[in-house]
Amino acid sequence: MTRQLEIICIGNELLIGKILNTNSQWIAKRATSFGITVKRITVVGDEINEIATATLEALRRKPRFVITTGGLGPTFDDKTLEGIATALKRKTEINKGALKMVREKYEAYAKQGRMETIELTPPRIKMATLPKRAKPLHNPIGTAPGVLTKIKSTFLIALPGVPSEMEAIFENSIAPMLKQEAKDLIFVERSVFISNIMESTLAPLIDQTMHANANIYVKSHPKSEENTPHIELHFSTMAKNSENARTCLQKAIAQLSELIEKNNGKIKTLNHG
Amino acid sequence: MTRQLEIICIGNELLIGKILNTNSQWIAKRATSFGITVKRITVVGDEINEIATATLEALRRKPRFVITTGGLGPTFDDKTLEGIATALKRKTEINKGALKMVREKYEAYAKQGRMETIELTPPRIKMATLPKRAKPLHNPIGTAPGVLTKIKSTFLIALPGVPSEMEAIFENSIAPMLKQEAKDLIFVERSVFISNIMESTLAPLIDQTMHANANIYVKSHPKSEENTPHIELHFSTMAKNSENARTCLQKAIAQLSELIEKNNGKIKTLNHG
Repeated sequence: MTRQLEIICIGNELLIGKILNTNSQWIAKRATSFGITVKRITVVGDEINEIATATLEALRRKPRFVITTGGLGPTFDDKTLEGIATALKRKTEINKGALKMVREKYEAYAKQGRMETIELTPPRIKMATLPKRAKPLHNPIGTAPGVLTKIKSTFLIALPGVPSEMEAIFENSIAPMLKQEAKDLIFVERSVFISNIMESTLAPLIDQTMHANANIYVKSHPKSEENTPHIELHFSTMAKNSENARTCLQKAIAQLSELIEKNNGKIKTLNHG
Repeated sequence: MTRQLEIICIGNELLIGKILNTNSQWIAKRATSFGITVKRITVVGDEINEIATATLEALRRKPRFVITTGGLGPTFDDKTLEGIATALKRKTEINKGALKMVREKYEAYAKQGRMETIELTPPRIKMATLPKRAKPLHNPIGTAPGVLTKIKSTFLIALPGVPSEMEAIFENSIAPMLKQEAKDLIFVERSVFISNIMESTLAPLIDQTMHANANIYVKSHPKSEENTPHIELHFSTMAKNSENARTCLQKAIAQLSELIEKNNGKIKTLNHG
């Protein structure tokens, strides 16, 4: 589907709750800001079959992009490329371009005195062993290249799990593709914080506002981190013209604010988006 | 599968990257500590079909538990119970037990002077409208009950998205079920931080250590947040006897540390688990 993206995060550390999945939030936020719709995020462990299954399932839903994170490194549990190859029924092979990228990294590390040997050991060659017909993506920060391949109308992209490396490859190689896909659509959002009204009272007021404002999505987020309960109202829309979109959001905010005040609710703060 | 859990997080706010998925990390960490294996985490948006599809897919993999978070509240975009009902091909109906829970909440709010009306309006009744044959779970913090139902050998559990509410229902109603399922298994983990060695050099040393220490899982996490690159080595195991498990972990740590030092790596700090 045009403008749709799925994210697959690979790593046991996510499934045992050792780390927060900041990568998926980062990608989701960036992609959304370009006008891309993230349809699903899947987290699986470091197992070839799990990775292959999740990849196949995503491909069957035919989003324009599938981005995986994690599992591209040199250790035994870095199995993403084998998982993808299994999903695509392709063999893996040493990719010349990828091997050049890996070799140049180790040569640079050696010059910096960070290295024991520049020998291309099996774990290092592993990072250049890609599914057939895949293309390596330059990693400006770390060693393992990203990987890009196309399956029918879907771009399948594998990025490393180390956030700085993932973000660098994303910005260099992926962001331009997403922007081109979304064309001139952008995501516009704004939040309003309210209090003194319960979410169940708010519900029909949100319905009324959304019916009167096509394409504006309003979602209420109850917040419990303060003593006095309050609610964040998040207004968002995808639009071609950002000024227009902001005017439409402002109109919806004004309408809903009026309804809330009529029901004795209080508008607390505006978060200018 | 015995001792397996899948988590499904529902909410557009996760797919646009507005918030970090702290709920899935919290559940994964708690469940893992009990000896439960989290097999997959899936994030979908506030759409009945998306929720139904993700639920069905999880049920087909036959984990012992599926826990959903989010989408139980009173607003139009709270669609989890409708999604689950669609997946199970069950109708929804007003559940008497759930309605009593919801009514008592609003009566309590009224006594605290927090309420406009105690009337059971449609958005409030919605929170007590459950798939047939499902059981409400008491929510000690907020209004919407959790929901429990069984499909063949899988417990399907729906929890709210507000973290304090999700955690309270989890601790009261779900943790005992997970502990009983895991019986006497526990998860034991420990981290060692190392430097002056590259991950590609480390890879065969980890392989060697894992082959010599059955049931011990060793994963390397390259860290880039400091100037000098370093690596966290995470050792973990599921075991019946915690003292035994710690001894086994310690043995594996000692073996790998020796191998690392032989390769000019430095053991930096130990994080006692």
